[in-house]
Amino acid sequence: MSTTSDDQAQTQREQALTDKVVASFANTPDDRLREILQAATRHLHAFVREVRLTEQEWEAGIAYLTAVGDITDDKRQEFILLSDTFGVSMQTITMNNQARGNATEATVFGPFFVQDSPEIDNGGDISGAATGMPCYVEGTVRGTDGQPVPGARIEAWEADDDGLYDVQYDDGRVGGRAHLFSDERGEYRFWAVQPTPYPIPYDGPVGQLLAAAERTPMRASHLHFMVTADGKRRLVTHIFVRGDSHLETDSVFGVKDSLVLDFDEQPAGTPTPDGRPVDGPWSRVRFDIVLADDLAG
Amino acid sequence: MSTTSDDQAQTQREQALTDKVVASFANTPDDRLREILQAATRHLHAFVREVRLTEQEWEAGIAYLTAVGDITDDKRQEFILLSDTFGVSMQTITMNNQARGNATEATVFGPFFVQDSPEIDNGGDISGAATGMPCYVEGTVRGTDGQPVPGARIEAWEADDDGLYDVQYDDGRVGGRAHLFSDERGEYRFWAVQPTPYPIPYDGPVGQLLAAAERTPMRASHLHFMVTADGKRRLVTHIFVRGDSHLETDSVFGVKDSLVLDFDEQPAGTPTPDGRPVDGPWSRVRFDIVLADDLAG
Ligand SMILES: [Fe+2]
Ligand SMILES: [Fe+2]
Repeated sequence: MSTTSDDQAQTQREQALTDKVVASFANTPDDRLREILQAATRHLHAFVREVRLTEQEWEAGIAYLTAVGDITDDKRQEFILLSDTFGVSMQTITMNNQARGNATEATVFGPFFVQDSPEIDNGGDISGAATGMPCYVEGTVRGTDGQPVPGARIEAWEADDDGLYDVQYDDGRVGGRAHLFSDERGEYRFWAVQPTPYPIPYDGPVGQLLAAAERTPMRASHLHFMVTADGKRRLVTHIFVRGDSHLETDSVFGVKDSLVLDFDEQPAGTPTPDGRPVDGPWSRVRFDIVLADDLAG
Repeated sequence: MSTTSDDQAQTQREQALTDKVVASFANTPDDRLREILQAATRHLHAFVREVRLTEQEWEAGIAYLTAVGDITDDKRQEFILLSDTFGVSMQTITMNNQARGNATEATVFGPFFVQDSPEIDNGGDISGAATGMPCYVEGTVRGTDGQPVPGARIEAWEADDDGLYDVQYDDGRVGGRAHLFSDERGEYRFWAVQPTPYPIPYDGPVGQLLAAAERTPMRASHLHFMVTADGKRRLVTHIFVRGDSHLETDSVFGVKDSLVLDFDEQPAGTPTPDGRPVDGPWSRVRFDIVLADDLAG
């Protein structure tokens, strides 16, 4: 029933409105804030115009964001979960860790890092109170020039075999986290527990969205790393277990092919690299780390 | 310091991530929800990639949305204010009221409509408890075919000369709102008060954003209308006062040129159209309303 001239008038009205909103931010004194507000306006309007958002859908969107706000408090951050599950967090990490040669790829930081983790010697054990199959982790820290990086600080943290980080224990026990330093040849080694999958919190609006999209809240099994060294770019990443069933559907899009490693399972009784006695099976993985130079410093 | 091959690797990583998130919604059973989620993903990623969002800016964005959620409750809806001030509400209204011939343009509904407003006779007064300079409003309701529409229900509501709607009074008085019906010739007339400007709530995160952008929270002076008639598309709109200083900077982008009308001020003592005695000056405005046909019915 709409005529060509009606359609032209309609397109003109919509574009004029978008232009007016963009122009309304033109006097923002802060250049960067202005850039962000104007770009947000253009992309928001492009989205609602592309999908021809109905008034009911707009109301549902407002109600959804309101529900996200309602469940968010000091301990639960549903806006971050929303950003995570739309890949916005991972895209931000990707952009802010520009590819440089063979530097190890970064991935999301996650909510479970703790300052002042226990320090262990090279070859020590990060497990503490965390239960699980023992896992021997070793590798070398190098620069993109191939030179070993001695004295790099390596933070490692992970969930136990129930999928819980120690900060989720109700009794304050510490486990599945520690830091150590690479030796004079840039090498490091430590004992940990075999990583296991766990879900992001899915009892709120983000969980409802994942369910409506038939997506899983599970994260692929992983071990977190943060590696820092003088003159090098800080690396925050994970390593993932090849063969894990959640690699393709990781709920926060943290998996990079280059971070999927072989965790080789060893039958019970297999001698360990450092002679440590282990009951039952254990696993081992090699993670060679390449740090980009710190250009900001 | 980045090489061409680094830049290519970077672009490939970012695009691959966006594609992966879009693909993650591919199994959404509801076709419309899938369309919306995938489009939201594409536009969100296009936004963060275009502005090269930093991690600090991402954190600031999360903190901003959290603050919007914190102030939102049963009475205060900061997410709607945010949508309003980015013109998303007005764009939704514009899209859902497709241009049709000379049909009167729609604008935002606003939060101050009340069901079951007082009914007045044609020629009556909607002012009630609302104070302000008397304003005589008249016009004809027609279809896009030019035929008068008798019996159209006309809801009108407005703020008083303090910029307050009656629902903002703390004593339950009713004023500045009523409904009436067009007569057998499609004509209507009523007394109201001259519209005055008022701010949207600006003591929260949206007010901070407006301040940072050097935008005003003020809405241009307006009188709300909702007009319904059998076989016609519902019209929700405002009329605005020509010469008002906030027309160009209306905080929610509700102003359309076609809705800016002459409110002619009459000196004290000027005889009124219906012979009603008025102390002091008054104003008059003609608003001829054109309703599109209801194609949905
Ligand atoms: Fe984790
Ligand atoms: Fe209003």
